[in-house]
Amino acid sequence: MSAGKLYGVGVGPGDPDLLTLKALKVITSADVVAYFAKMGSKGTSRGIVDGHLPPGTVELPLYYPMTTEHHKDSPIYIKALRDFYAECEVRLRALLDEGKTIALLSEGDPLFYGAAMHLHVRIAPHYDTEVIPGVTGMAGCWSAAQQPICQGDDILSVLPGTLSEDALTEALGNCQAAVIMKIGRNLPKVRRALARAGCLDRALYAERGTTAHQKIIPLADRPEDAAPYFSLILVPGWEDKP
Amino acid sequence: MSAGKLYGVGVGPGDPDLLTLKALKVITSADVVAYFAKMGSKGTSRGIVDGHLPPGTVELPLYYPMTTEHHKDSPIYIKALRDFYAECEVRLRALLDEGKTIALLSEGDPLFYGAAMHLHVRIAPHYDTEVIPGVTGMAGCWSAAQQPICQGDDILSVLPGTLSEDALTEALGNCQAAVIMKIGRNLPKVRRALARAGCLDRALYAERGTTAHQKIIPLADRPEDAAPYFSLILVPGWEDKP
Repeated sequence: MSAGKLYGVGVGPGDPDLLTLKALKVITSADVVAYFAKMGSKGTSRGIVDGHLPPGTVELPLYYPMTTEHHKDSPIYIKALRDFYAECEVRLRALLDEGKTIALLSEGDPLFYGAAMHLHVRIAPHYDTEVIPGVTGMAGCWSAAQQPICQGDDILSVLPGTLSEDALTEALGNCQAAVIMKIGRNLPKVRRALARAGCLDRALYAERGTTAHQKIIPLADRPEDAAPYFSLILVPGWEDKP
Repeated sequence: MSAGKLYGVGVGPGDPDLLTLKALKVITSADVVAYFAKMGSKGTSRGIVDGHLPPGTVELPLYYPMTTEHHKDSPIYIKALRDFYAECEVRLRALLDEGKTIALLSEGDPLFYGAAMHLHVRIAPHYDTEVIPGVTGMAGCWSAAQQPICQGDDILSVLPGTLSEDALTEALGNCQAAVIMKIGRNLPKVRRALARAGCLDRALYAERGTTAHQKIIPLADRPEDAAPYFSLILVPGWEDKP
């Protein structure tokens, strides 16, 4: 019996219609649909494909370990994650050894800040693998806002909101357009960095872009309370062009 | 009679199966499918949807003015482009006034370095408009290469190869991951900047990712001749993570 195949499948920013034709083919024909989720939750990527999966689809939820009490750079957190990925690898390899095809879902694009890449790089040296790219969350947001993000010779930088205020301010000064990810509790710091870099007046706050719960407003109109972790800030770079 | 609607439609990186379900619905139901092309050529975005358009689809090719003899920053080139976009706007508005729905195609994503945004911003204040995001060319390339591009707290910068060697070198030093676009005749300069920034050994050269003519190789293995304008360089930032 020959081994199966692992597909890393990007399921896009949230609107189920923003799956690609290829992603739909793979998730409806795979033997197993796998995805990350927090214990007690359905998982973002799984939620996006809810209406696409045929009845009887075999699912493999991969539940993250409970580690919110530890900082993401702490040795305990890193070890917990490494153990978790190693355990997931064992489960996927067992299925692949049985000849199964597996669709491992990622919201957005699998290789762009996605968790599934941790499994992909473990599996790819040993089995047949393929990656189906997806529409990113940021593209979903700037499209929903109908806001051109960059053009011509603009530099676009994608910045994690976890950077220090000084690092964010400097990075914003090195580009014409920016997307700041992982906002959550970092919102006040990000706002200060945008103000220092002179970008605050054109920054947009976006959460759940392309979904029914989408909210996209000028950052200046956004209250200073905590934002969802997966919200983001758009700083359009495109201004005076032909 | 009510006015029509303009859809800006991202058709993805090249593989026709990487259109989204939403893009397919829009292009197969629109009254007119419009796209940019060079005179005498079919147009990249139009080529991608070749197998998707129903027989009898009404098409509106928008042919760029012949301006290759002028530098892109020259007043003559900028005026020619501005006149061209103004003329395209007139043609689209006439159709919208007749109540037509128009799908204006963009390779990749419409608002990410796309030409269609020049028409979109002219039309959007006056008519009903919507933007359908697409999978970008760069995501198509890193997925085809199965190469994680960024993760965790990486900064990803998208850099135009038209920047000077010094500017490119500096920008590469300000990020963990990079994508360099618009390679073409800039290849030797881009390679020097990558070497100076210490990124040459992990850089990948990619052209026509996700198509039948895809070519993705380590940049070190790429001869120093001219590359297609739409080729790109990937500098993966993702290294030692859990």
